[in-house]
Amino acid sequence: MAETTGGVGAGTRSGVITLLTDFGLDDGYVAAVKGVIASLAPDARVIDVCHRIPAHDVRRGGIVWASAVPYFPPGTVHVAVVDPGVGTARRILAVEARGSIFLAPDNGIIGHVASRREIRSSVEVRAKKYFLPRVSATFHGRDVFAPVAARLASGLAVEALGPPRRPTSWDALPSPRRRTVARGGRRVVEDRGEIVLTDGFGNAVTNLRPPEGRRLESLVAGGLTLRGLHRAYGEAPEGAPLVLVGSTGHVEIAVNRGRASEALQLRVGDRVTATWA
Amino acid sequence: MAETTGGVGAGTRSGVITLLTDFGLDDGYVAAVKGVIASLAPDARVIDVCHRIPAHDVRRGGIVWASAVPYFPPGTVHVAVVDPGVGTARRILAVEARGSIFLAPDNGIIGHVASRREIRSSVEVRAKKYFLPRVSATFHGRDVFAPVAARLASGLAVEALGPPRRPTSWDALPSPRRRTVARGGRRVVEDRGEIVLTDGFGNAVTNLRPPEGRRLESLVAGGLTLRGLHRAYGEAPEGAPLVLVGSTGHVEIAVNRGRASEALQLRVGDRVTATWA
Amino acid sequence: MAETTGGVGAGTRSGVITLLTDFGLDDGYVAAVKGVIASLAPDARVIDVCHRIPAHDVRRGGIVWASAVPYFPPGTVHVAVVDPGVGTARRILAVEARGSIFLAPDNGIIGHVASRREIRSSVEVRAKKYFLPRVSATFHGRDVFAPVAARLASGLAVEALGPPRRPTSWDALPSPRRRTVARGGRRVVEDRGEIVLTDGFGNAVTNLRPPEGRRLESLVAGGLTLRGLHRAYGEAPEGAPLVLVGSTGHVEIAVNRGRASEALQLRVGDRVTATWA
Repeated sequence: MAETTGGVGAGTRSGVITLLTDFGLDDGYVAAVKGVIASLAPDARVIDVCHRIPAHDVRRGGIVWASAVPYFPPGTVHVAVVDPGVGTARRILAVEARGSIFLAPDNGIIGHVASRREIRSSVEVRAKKYFLPRVSATFHGRDVFAPVAARLASGLAVEALGPPRRPTSWDALPSPRRRTVARGGRRVVEDRGEIVLTDGFGNAVTNLRPPEGRRLESLVAGGLTLRGLHRAYGEAPEGAPLVLVGSTGHVEIAVNRGRASEALQLRVGDRVTATWA
Repeated sequence: MAETTGGVGAGTRSGVITLLTDFGLDDGYVAAVKGVIASLAPDARVIDVCHRIPAHDVRRGGIVWASAVPYFPPGTVHVAVVDPGVGTARRILAVEARGSIFLAPDNGIIGHVASRREIRSSVEVRAKKYFLPRVSATFHGRDVFAPVAARLASGLAVEALGPPRRPTSWDALPSPRRRTVARGGRRVVEDRGEIVLTDGFGNAVTNLRPPEGRRLESLVAGGLTLRGLHRAYGEAPEGAPLVLVGSTGHVEIAVNRGRASEALQLRVGDRVTATWA
Repeated sequence: MAETTGGVGAGTRSGVITLLTDFGLDDGYVAAVKGVIASLAPDARVIDVCHRIPAHDVRRGGIVWASAVPYFPPGTVHVAVVDPGVGTARRILAVEARGSIFLAPDNGIIGHVASRREIRSSVEVRAKKYFLPRVSATFHGRDVFAPVAARLASGLAVEALGPPRRPTSWDALPSPRRRTVARGGRRVVEDRGEIVLTDGFGNAVTNLRPPEGRRLESLVAGGLTLRGLHRAYGEAPEGAPLVLVGSTGHVEIAVNRGRASEALQLRVGDRVTATWA
């Protein structure tokens, strides 16, 4: 069938669909999405990434998405429905990149899982024949994303969904600013960035990545100066703050067996400055 | 095998079991249920509808159930364990309706997913040979519902579970009152109903459905009067309240990118009056 | 293949992997674990036990684990990642006991699901060829537990993972103290124990088990004296406290349709004394 050829072909689909939403766990919304998928693609396996993204928080949704997506098999269909514009003129995109398929509103969230040049194919999802027969204006997760994801997981080509269209919105972590400065006769690297996420453990994750071959002299966040880079949370005394490189490769501030976000009063958006010797 | 014939036959089971409970996500209770099912029906696929129904809240459980159930394939076994009467004389029912099977205590929750005349078969679940060997008085979800659901998903006929028995309790949304009234020389439809649920987004869902061919003149809720019906949340200015028809077909009050329940102080049980011109 | 023989052999694996963590549901951490498993063992079925164990709370994690594990099919791989020592010198153990396999840090949590003499095989997980190629110091759930669990579910023998090593840490419920005392000319059994968990319903679970053939005369907890043992929550008047034997066989204090932990101000660690006549 012509529709199933091209791009990441049917033969390379993993049969896995992942779901990231801001639907929460108190209602039946996620289940309705899964019911549609179970009806249309009985053999697809649905894996939850997260449903507790704060409502409409595209930034946090994107960071959480990016932390999980790389670990799934190639040919997975990754669906993100953090969609304050549902029912308005905003577009839905199906994007093929990095060997997998991403289905999301054109609200920038794609930027967290693929760079512009990694996109191999990108279309606007418009082929109504792949939607539920009646499409509400308030729940495209169920009426559009779910049936389209089911078809993609079953091998439908991205190109069958609509006309080519690149993402027009592009969210991404703010870029840190790096400069080399002289300090006490030495040249050090100074990175200025910010806290981009506090996770469920209270760890404050920044947008900084460690430069190669240098050691952390200090990290300043809020009124706090922390010295040295640790490898693991348990290397600091219990209750003590520490800096380490977290599981996504970013510098983060933690408290061993505690919650840095509360103990150190760190919030998303707070400025951080790291000095690498 | 005689037991597996009749009603929704084995051949028409989808192999899917859905679970709705008030067990929460902090304990191992849901997992114990899934372990029993995995032991007895290894090929069944279990899909969570919701486990965060407030303890013993049959009404909310039923509304959430009704929002998801219609989207699952025919032949699915839908299990609801919101069961304050566990271990007492309350009955457990297995009901065949609308091409699927519902397993729930006889506490009225069935009323949200099937009408009386849609019930094709209904039995009291009493056949102990399908329960776990030891049945506790406090956890029928694990000891009765799970093994019975596993057998139903594998093709056991509803009739094999016990004697015919219709539901004796019947919860349902309160019926709104509709009347046609003269106003300024015109005849308008006035619906009086109430808020039946506030969802995870803070949207306040009512028991009203829009009459065909009329437009919403006003909706009064609390001290608030809202005018006109919107199609999508994003059609109102950010932070502004609006009225729309939500994903289950009911009139709901929302705030674009906000939480209506808090911003407008709306609660379950609050009266609403809609006037349709 | 020699590696897949011995112990609970490949032929006896259920293909089910269960996950218990303190990762919470707000991040993508659980999904990253599932992504790794889906990549390495596409046919394994992953079932969540609980991800809302309070951070680093090995005791609660163990109790929740123990409440679910016995209900899974033999040959299941049970993974517990409540791991404050991640990245430090703490060991990871793979333990074969009771016909299943347990993968957990050597922090005592194994003690809740197997006794010392039930352990048939126990190794330290050290074979790096079964880990992800790059192992972070902060997220062994993803980089070590997930790939090892995938291999175990696919039939890898426990012995292939590393050298024999018994658990060195052993958490377990505190043992209650039982004595027989004379009271009013009769001999009664007096059990002194404590509250070990308050569950999502607010039920306060103790470490006491009822002695056979005796009836509960009284249970004292805090300033409260409760008389008689009930079978089911609904046997007490609404809002009234009661004592019963809960679903794991332990004595618990509940309030019918209420929350004992709040209503009676009961907390983990509170002493309880039961007198059995």
